[in-house]
Amino acid sequence: MPETLAGYEPAAAAVLPAAVRDFVAGGSGAELTLHRNRAALDAITVTPRILGAVDQPKTTTKLLRTPCALPLAVAPMAYQKLLHPEGELLLAAAAAAAGVPYVISTLSSTPLEKIAAAAPSWFQLYWLRDRNLVGALIDRATEAGCHALMVTVDVPIMGQRLRDVRNGFALPPEVIAANLVDKYTEAHKTPGTGSAIAAHTALAFDPAFSWRDLEWIRRRTDLPLVLKGILDPRDALTALDAGADGLVVSNHGGRQFDGAPAAIDALSSVIDAVGNEMTVLLDSGIRSGADIVKALARGAHGVLVGRPLLWALALGVPADALTTLGRELRDAMLLAGCADLTAVADLITGRD
Amino acid sequence: MPETLAGYEPAAAAVLPAAVRDFVAGGSGAELTLHRNRAALDAITVTPRILGAVDQPKTTTKLLRTPCALPLAVAPMAYQKLLHPEGELLLAAAAAAAGVPYVISTLSSTPLEKIAAAAPSWFQLYWLRDRNLVGALIDRATEAGCHALMVTVDVPIMGQRLRDVRNGFALPPEVIAANLVDKYTEAHKTPGTGSAIAAHTALAFDPAFSWRDLEWIRRRTDLPLVLKGILDPRDALTALDAGADGLVVSNHGGRQFDGAPAAIDALSSVIDAVGNEMTVLLDSGIRSGADIVKALARGAHGVLVGRPLLWALALGVPADALTTLGRELRDAMLLAGCADLTAVADLITGRD
Amino acid sequence: MPETLAGYEPAAAAVLPAAVRDFVAGGSGAELTLHRNRAALDAITVTPRILGAVDQPKTTTKLLRTPCALPLAVAPMAYQKLLHPEGELLLAAAAAAAGVPYVISTLSSTPLEKIAAAAPSWFQLYWLRDRNLVGALIDRATEAGCHALMVTVDVPIMGQRLRDVRNGFALPPEVIAANLVDKYTEAHKTPGTGSAIAAHTALAFDPAFSWRDLEWIRRRTDLPLVLKGILDPRDALTALDAGADGLVVSNHGGRQFDGAPAAIDALSSVIDAVGNEMTVLLDSGIRSGADIVKALARGAHGVLVGRPLLWALALGVPADALTTLGRELRDAMLLAGCADLTAVADLITGRD
Amino acid sequence: MPETLAGYEPAAAAVLPAAVRDFVAGGSGAELTLHRNRAALDAITVTPRILGAVDQPKTTTKLLRTPCALPLAVAPMAYQKLLHPEGELLLAAAAAAAGVPYVISTLSSTPLEKIAAAAPSWFQLYWLRDRNLVGALIDRATEAGCHALMVTVDVPIMGQRLRDVRNGFALPPEVIAANLVDKYTEAHKTPGTGSAIAAHTALAFDPAFSWRDLEWIRRRTDLPLVLKGILDPRDALTALDAGADGLVVSNHGGRQFDGAPAAIDALSSVIDAVGNEMTVLLDSGIRSGADIVKALARGAHGVLVGRPLLWALALGVPADALTTLGRELRDAMLLAGCADLTAVADLITGRD
Ligand SMILES: Cc1cc2nc3c(=O)[nH]c(=O)nc-3n(C[C@H](O)[C@H](O)[C@H](O)COP(=O)(O)O)c2cc1C
Ligand SMILES: Cc1cc2nc3c(=O)[nH]c(=O)nc-3n(C[C@H](O)[C@H](O)[C@H](O)COP(=O)(O)O)c2cc1C
Ligand SMILES: Cc1cc2nc3c(=O)[nH]c(=O)nc-3n(C[C@H](O)[C@H](O)[C@H](O)COP(=O)(O)O)c2cc1C
Ligand SMILES: Cc1cc2nc3c(=O)[nH]c(=O)nc-3n(C[C@H](O)[C@H](O)[C@H](O)COP(=O)(O)O)c2cc1C
Repeated sequence: MPETLAGYEPAAAAVLPAAVRDFVAGGSGAELTLHRNRAALDAITVTPRILGAVDQPKTTTKLLRTPCALPLAVAPMAYQKLLHPEGELLLAAAAAAAGVPYVISTLSSTPLEKIAAAAPSWFQLYWLRDRNLVGALIDRATEAGCHALMVTVDVPIMGQRLRDVRNGFALPPEVIAANLVDKYTEAHKTPGTGSAIAAHTALAFDPAFSWRDLEWIRRRTDLPLVLKGILDPRDALTALDAGADGLVVSNHGGRQFDGAPAAIDALSSVIDAVGNEMTVLLDSGIRSGADIVKALARGAHGVLVGRPLLWALALGVPADALTTLGRELRDAMLLAGCADLTAVADLITGRD
Repeated sequence: MPETLAGYEPAAAAVLPAAVRDFVAGGSGAELTLHRNRAALDAITVTPRILGAVDQPKTTTKLLRTPCALPLAVAPMAYQKLLHPEGELLLAAAAAAAGVPYVISTLSSTPLEKIAAAAPSWFQLYWLRDRNLVGALIDRATEAGCHALMVTVDVPIMGQRLRDVRNGFALPPEVIAANLVDKYTEAHKTPGTGSAIAAHTALAFDPAFSWRDLEWIRRRTDLPLVLKGILDPRDALTALDAGADGLVVSNHGGRQFDGAPAAIDALSSVIDAVGNEMTVLLDSGIRSGADIVKALARGAHGVLVGRPLLWALALGVPADALTTLGRELRDAMLLAGCADLTAVADLITGRD
Repeated sequence: MPETLAGYEPAAAAVLPAAVRDFVAGGSGAELTLHRNRAALDAITVTPRILGAVDQPKTTTKLLRTPCALPLAVAPMAYQKLLHPEGELLLAAAAAAAGVPYVISTLSSTPLEKIAAAAPSWFQLYWLRDRNLVGALIDRATEAGCHALMVTVDVPIMGQRLRDVRNGFALPPEVIAANLVDKYTEAHKTPGTGSAIAAHTALAFDPAFSWRDLEWIRRRTDLPLVLKGILDPRDALTALDAGADGLVVSNHGGRQFDGAPAAIDALSSVIDAVGNEMTVLLDSGIRSGADIVKALARGAHGVLVGRPLLWALALGVPADALTTLGRELRDAMLLAGCADLTAVADLITGRD
Repeated sequence: MPETLAGYEPAAAAVLPAAVRDFVAGGSGAELTLHRNRAALDAITVTPRILGAVDQPKTTTKLLRTPCALPLAVAPMAYQKLLHPEGELLLAAAAAAAGVPYVISTLSSTPLEKIAAAAPSWFQLYWLRDRNLVGALIDRATEAGCHALMVTVDVPIMGQRLRDVRNGFALPPEVIAANLVDKYTEAHKTPGTGSAIAAHTALAFDPAFSWRDLEWIRRRTDLPLVLKGILDPRDALTALDAGADGLVVSNHGGRQFDGAPAAIDALSSVIDAVGNEMTVLLDSGIRSGADIVKALARGAHGVLVGRPLLWALALGVPADALTTLGRELRDAMLLAGCADLTAVADLITGRD
């Protein structure tokens, strides 16, 4: 078993088909933003404190009214049956066991109701061409007891993932978009001419998603509303005005606009704009407890963790990965002299 | 077929003679500026916007009164028959098909009139020792219907291109400077003692080109006048005073003064000086739609694209390359939430 | 014999078992801070002076009232019998010969009294779960004639040293924590399930170490008191208020919080806060006389030298290493035009 | 024949004994400063100008009252017979042919009178333990018609050149310090125990060189006096007060204090302090005409060129190297739009 959260990637890479590994690991374009995410997190320094009388650091918090044992949620990630036959259910169970929210993707390969029944969940919404389908998804998520609605705003189209294009990546027949209907369920085009995933996105998603549409969503649900994929502070302010409760500062793990800044570098200006009035989460590149400390010391209230949990899922042990991450976070807090997350937020940060 | 504009270089490298590849790819001196162009563009970040209701991003603009389907022109590049028997005509046809201006080089291997007949063109002028030849070229370009005159100001002599010197690079007999006359048409010296191209430049070009000469040009033509190869804002202001309509912020793709800043790094101070009063284009290192977004977000009104189109020409498919670039630009605009080029100009940029 | 202090590492690596080498060389986590320590010292520039009429640079100083022939002390390092059968005694004798204090580790593999008898020493204290043991150690150190008490404040738990975890590193039977008692003396768990050193630390150390505990220590001893492992200037000020006489700005050689800044980069803000009122030492990455000059030019009053002396100990020649370091320092001072350490402190520094 | 000045190094490396190559190429310590010199020059950008009506750029200047065809002098370098049997005489003749001053080293392997007879020269003075010898050298240099006295102030002792130490480098019998007398002429100790060059320096040079000694020199000669090896602006001001006419901002090519800033990075603060009142030269890393442009654009009045001319001497063609450098400078000036050195000084510079 890997000793670190970061260790799951090489371990999983050894057992996964190359095209699946590429689909998960890859970014868009020249992967500049993908690499920038890690380079920026590696370059950030956090100055530890001493003599904090910390014995058992307190990692609990509330994110969007959901109590969390750790300041994180499992990032919404499509098609988890690609990694493991039990797919979403296994990862959601791990999240539940770890006491953190699981974010169900619009494109989950298991029906959202089954997942929501297995774990405290938030629901991630993509803006689809079929407006009725969007409405129905919101209703189903509410019905199923999801605690928040996370609207992804950085996928008007899919970023060009060259690995998938070159691999002619398509889903195997048994993996479908289980929450959708009819033609929208399948991304199974025979390989050979580009990414079937990209084709499916182009078919199903409405690029013309607008602030007016968001207001429509806001009116349609009482769930806490969080926008995923914000980097510009001007958009953060508009989101606040539009009634959003939270934001995820994210570049989608380097999978959308290649050229975007590292999420961690975009964080400060968003925090300055809305940090006191909204829940601000961060994702894109979080790979360790120390990374969470960096994000929180820079002002985030919590993080989403993506790929590392898919790697752990591929190995059938997502719960171990979350346990490891929890331990890494507690160790980092101890070593940084932080009794709780407020103390983490007070740490001085720098950059190489 | 390469999936990206950048992909044409390796594809063409596989089919071209090494000396031709070097002639196109190379820079001057230690190639510091050549590499800096790419490093700078890679290091620039652009922060995408969201929920812009963008469905079909509008990429059209006017550059120097010429309507353009994309905010770019094909950079003037000499001797295109080196790459393909049809040379300039094939690339110009691709430009016409893509709806962008083709800039005819003084050193085109096809007579300018034939090219201008095939595509909406601008004419690029070098300052030759033979003043009558210069005057005649301006007249011919005007006559032929060129829509702008682009005067290249960064080639008093040719930068020392060591690859060409070491390769003893010379043109094959069938490739000539078709717009020139007599001894000026040939750069065919037998290889072995340096670059025949450099020798030809030394023979034909007048290094003592001055602002007074430029005024002479300005008086001689009513065409929009753009100076290509400006990096210092003081020169930009003088150019404005001299009646120029536009500038190309350029280091000639790293082929002239080795030690010059990356063009993209020199852009801001030029924009600050004259950006409201002149058309400011940028070239040197543009390799993707995202690069165009970077240049425009930093203040350029458009770009020139150079080498990638020669690589595509070598493969006989320049139209495909421009199609790919157009798609990349639209994708980048969609992903950055930009409905049009004004929105692009408003994006926040940073630098690693 | 290596010509430089830095040369002892490769020389020792050639003769040591890999797991011991890893134990000494390694850092915690991804070893970001370990590498940052060196990168930062390499990047710092010091501007030499001229015509200082320096013949024999004076390297003497007083650190915490202890006269020192060089502005340094031997860093406290556990279990030195791992490197050489004579362990602490051989290195302490070298320190005595060089005229610099030797800092006895709480975890020395030789009883502190034997070491203190062999060399002018300071005693390094870890905060143990067994408060009586702590009190006894302070008394024994005082009794044995130690000249200062250095309380290490950056080890609430041991940082995760992955090399040791992967090596299943444990001490050989003959190496024990000679100052401790009963179960606390042994870190000999059979290898295979993680680091026995880490397990021992978890067993023996009290993570809940607090400023109140420090006050208790302050009251219990009249020895000069120095806190080792401070990076945040706010903690430096609290330490001053708590009656500490000195600080070691240190990230424990990159072995504790991975993500901490380079010690040399954290130095200035600590100096600004308390530099006039406390003795401020620096460790983490010092490998040469020039490094000492850098630290002093940035404001430190002296340094601790760690690993290089263990490498020399492994070769049986720690005295040679200190002689070499002394020569390197004098050479660096001569070349920088500094007659004494005050002149060094006045040098201008920069950073690449 | 190499096409560039920089090309002489690899060409010479192929024909020289490894130990001689190392002696010339090497720096002190970890060679941080050696590499920094080049990294800094490579990172500096210079923004070219346009339309300067430059045909034949004027490279002439006066340095310390000596008319120079190029803004440079040949750096003083010891023992040139190591590279070529004719040694100093061949390189001095090349300097004379190129119209630039040759700086005779105190440690020349040819008597200074013979060199001064062959070329317009300056004399470089080391401060020797034997004061009479120093006085005699000044008298001889004056007598021989040297036009300036360059006092090297950065060699109280020799920096530790590890390559020489490891090679046990010693001079071959036929190479001697021809200007010195008795035991001071020889650096021929049998190899095997360190650098014989370093031993010779330690024997002959007086580290206790002081400002008072410099005043003694100032009084003893009417020649223009230039201090070589200044980096700190405070020393520059003292030098001005002491009656020096010029300075060489230099870290001795990375051969003395390892940790010093790149000379080009130290230049600006020296220029700010004394640039209007003294002749400020720069050396350490100049390898091309573009490097000279960088130095002058940053404020230097001229440069010294060192190692590249030794490499050319080894190949027997120092005149070619200076011709190449002159051409590179003229080309760089043409490409940067500079008619003369005043225009170069006015160029905008930056740094990556
Ligand atoms: C395989 C994969 C599938 C993803 N699917 C979705 C998705 O369906 N919805 C969504 O909002 N984000 C999706 N993301 C983005 C993640 O939610 C998250 O933003 C990103 O992975 C965070 O970066 P990290 O993987 O570096 O932690 C996906 C990411 C990956 C790697
Ligand atoms: C093979 C080649 C030939 C060129 N010929 C000309 C020319 O005739 N006139 C001119 O103004 N610029 C010429 N250029 C420079 C381009 O117009 C342009 O400034 C440069 O290539 C832009 O950089 P890029 O290639 O990185 O896009 C040439 C460039 C290349 C690579
Ligand atoms: C093998 C080893 C054992 C150490 N043991 C202790 C210790 O017992 N107490 C302590 O305060 N620091 C200990 N340290 C940390 C050193 O005192 C010092 O902070 C660190 O090594 C300085 O960095 P350097 O090795 O890069 O010089 C140890 C370091 C090493 C490498
Ligand atoms: C082999 C060698 C011998 C040198 N001898 C002397 C010398 O005798 N006197 C002196 O002032 N500098 C001496 N220098 C330093 C040069 O004058 C000059 O400062 C340095 O080489 C400049 O850097 P560059 O070689 O990178 O151009 C020597 C340098 C070299 C490489």
